[in-house]
Amino acid sequence: MYAVEVSDQIMIAHSFRGEVFGPAQKLHGATFVVRVAFFSPRLDENGIVVDIARAHEVLRDALAPLAYQNLDELPRFAGTNTTTEFLTRHLFDRLADAARSGGLGRDGRELSAIRVTVAESPAARAWYEAPLW
Amino acid sequence: MYAVEVSDQIMIAHSFRGEVFGPAQKLHGATFVVRVAFFSPRLDENGIVVDIARAHEVLRDALAPLAYQNLDELPRFAGTNTTTEFLTRHLFDRLADAARSGGLGRDGRELSAIRVTVAESPAARAWYEAPLW
Amino acid sequence: MYAVEVSDQIMIAHSFRGEVFGPAQKLHGATFVVRVAFFSPRLDENGIVVDIARAHEVLRDALAPLAYQNLDELPRFAGTNTTTEFLTRHLFDRLADAARSGGLGRDGRELSAIRVTVAESPAARAWYEAPLW
Amino acid sequence: MYAVEVSDQIMIAHSFRGEVFGPAQKLHGATFVVRVAFFSPRLDENGIVVDIARAHEVLRDALAPLAYQNLDELPRFAGTNTTTEFLTRHLFDRLADAARSGGLGRDGRELSAIRVTVAESPAARAWYEAPLW
Amino acid sequence: MYAVEVSDQIMIAHSFRGEVFGPAQKLHGATFVVRVAFFSPRLDENGIVVDIARAHEVLRDALAPLAYQNLDELPRFAGTNTTTEFLTRHLFDRLADAARSGGLGRDGRELSAIRVTVAESPAARAWYEAPLW
Amino acid sequence: MYAVEVSDQIMIAHSFRGEVFGPAQKLHGATFVVRVAFFSPRLDENGIVVDIARAHEVLRDALAPLAYQNLDELPRFAGTNTTTEFLTRHLFDRLADAARSGGLGRDGRELSAIRVTVAESPAARAWYEAPLW
Repeated sequence: MYAVEVSDQIMIAHSFRGEVFGPAQKLHGATFVVRVAFFSPRLDENGIVVDIARAHEVLRDALAPLAYQNLDELPRFAGTNTTTEFLTRHLFDRLADAARSGGLGRDGRELSAIRVTVAESPAARAWYEAPLW
Repeated sequence: MYAVEVSDQIMIAHSFRGEVFGPAQKLHGATFVVRVAFFSPRLDENGIVVDIARAHEVLRDALAPLAYQNLDELPRFAGTNTTTEFLTRHLFDRLADAARSGGLGRDGRELSAIRVTVAESPAARAWYEAPLW
Repeated sequence: MYAVEVSDQIMIAHSFRGEVFGPAQKLHGATFVVRVAFFSPRLDENGIVVDIARAHEVLRDALAPLAYQNLDELPRFAGTNTTTEFLTRHLFDRLADAARSGGLGRDGRELSAIRVTVAESPAARAWYEAPLW
Repeated sequence: MYAVEVSDQIMIAHSFRGEVFGPAQKLHGATFVVRVAFFSPRLDENGIVVDIARAHEVLRDALAPLAYQNLDELPRFAGTNTTTEFLTRHLFDRLADAARSGGLGRDGRELSAIRVTVAESPAARAWYEAPLW
Repeated sequence: MYAVEVSDQIMIAHSFRGEVFGPAQKLHGATFVVRVAFFSPRLDENGIVVDIARAHEVLRDALAPLAYQNLDELPRFAGTNTTTEFLTRHLFDRLADAARSGGLGRDGRELSAIRVTVAESPAARAWYEAPLW
Repeated sequence: MYAVEVSDQIMIAHSFRGEVFGPAQKLHGATFVVRVAFFSPRLDENGIVVDIARAHEVLRDALAPLAYQNLDELPRFAGTNTTTEFLTRHLFDRLADAARSGGLGRDGRELSAIRVTVAESPAARAWYEAPLW
């Protein structure tokens, strides 16, 4: 199995509800370093999984609605703890849509899975990986 | 599948028996940068795999008996080469016990696997990954 | 000249006033990875610049009032853009106080300078360095 | 499952054919940071997956024919886009041969898989992973 | 003294003349990870050394003529070994011009120095630092 | 001012005397990631500060007597705390000797200073920098 992974980052504010979060229940923020890996069992006729430049664009498009936002105020996240784990899945869903619909410049059925990794600091990160079909 | 990974480090001394180890048969030491990933197919009601603060504590507890030790003198390791690989499994066993018994603050049956990664230098590392059940 | 440097990190929310900041004028946040270096022309009788454990504590104490805070709401920062650069100086002032008053466990006059580095992402960071006397 | 991973690097020149590559159709180059992970379900009698020193040598041998080369001029790559993905597979094949034939100093049947990761920059990398048998 | 540093990267091909370069006399290439630090004794009225977004643009502009190029074929480098050290100075000169002429969005006389760091691999890098005035 | 920096690493055992060291008074160990920077105001006729390959060799030679050693047992370090800071100076002295005597392949008087950085973990490091003449 082949994979290609690109990375980017965003800076956001948010707060969590639930005692388990301790001081993170207060409004705080994070620099999220985000990596997305696209998996495929075969390279295309150019010898690539997906075009790296296109992968960077698709990742930037998925991150743009979150960049410099207070996630607590985004209607789509109302009532949700926007944890690092939650965001790996949120981004997976958007990137999976892009991949399945050919947004990476390759027939989506030739891509088998996606993994989204979000690092909130050098000491903690989360990821979500799932098949596309 | 979701995963959350936290990291910490220890400094230890040890030596190895076996010609394959060359100069590492002498007493030497290492800074081990240790990462543990907890896997779960589902987030809990707070939107997390496990509490990151708790994960850091559980990892620190697993590392504490090794920190600043000469591993050659620990009775539990008598007759054993405490290689990087061996330590990934030793730590897995302790962390798996903690995870299965609810030590991460989540019903252990909701956690599916653990991966322990130990880097001995920027150029070499090992990991052990296995299901919890 | 000798130096010893330790690192830690915090997660905060804030916003900036001024067109130059573009989208960062909105409330957002950051993970700040902070490093502090203590400089001295001579090692003490133990062979160290300062005790690394003590340096970690002093850094943690300097960061604690900022951790998990919305910096816009802290009275001490009222009317101030809490930029990465500003924070390097804010932390320098606190760490310099600690160093001068012996808080690092060494006569402050034996320490000559401090450098505080704050990384807001893998692609951008700032630092402030100045003599202590 | 256990894994041991070592890393090394090479500097090469090459160019790509295909509009998808944009400016990378011109002769350019890259520093490739290469990591190879050897997987095994069991440690050997020394407590290792493979000897790390031997792993470094086998990786260096696999990289040597590429180091400081213009890949466009190597007969074995004629008519091929030597993309990052392609190189992960090229290196996998050589490292798999070494592993299967005992070149790592362990009966190749005790090694189950190999993963080769090639980073072309801090922001983009590819990998290829496959079973050995 | 304050500093703000941003980073970017380019991929280039080149070769060197001189026995000291050994195999690097052949056409090969590199990923250069480039960082530029702007120094100033004082923050401006916004609380910054320079606008980070502007700094990224100015760095990108300085790198653009080199990106995806065979440096051996650029007329401006004819008869020159485009070593990592040489490139730190080449980039310094361009960035210093931008800084002095206000290209960073701040009166150039308020900027005191620039440091350009170019990493050719995780194990080797060079930098050039000089005052602007 | 130009600088070229190369890196390598060693794994050693040692212990410290002095209450300030806490648990590090016991025999433990470390992976030391060592970087040495050579400074020069001018490039040589090849366009370099020093040959990077030669710099790597000189660094490896300076590290070799320490690699895989229990520093407590080396006669040259008898009665000395081999702290990270101490080692930066020990290595500086050896590397300065090499530089002054032409061991880097360049007239030593054309090199102006050396900085040796030793990282004992991702969270703590020390350096020593001094002029050569």
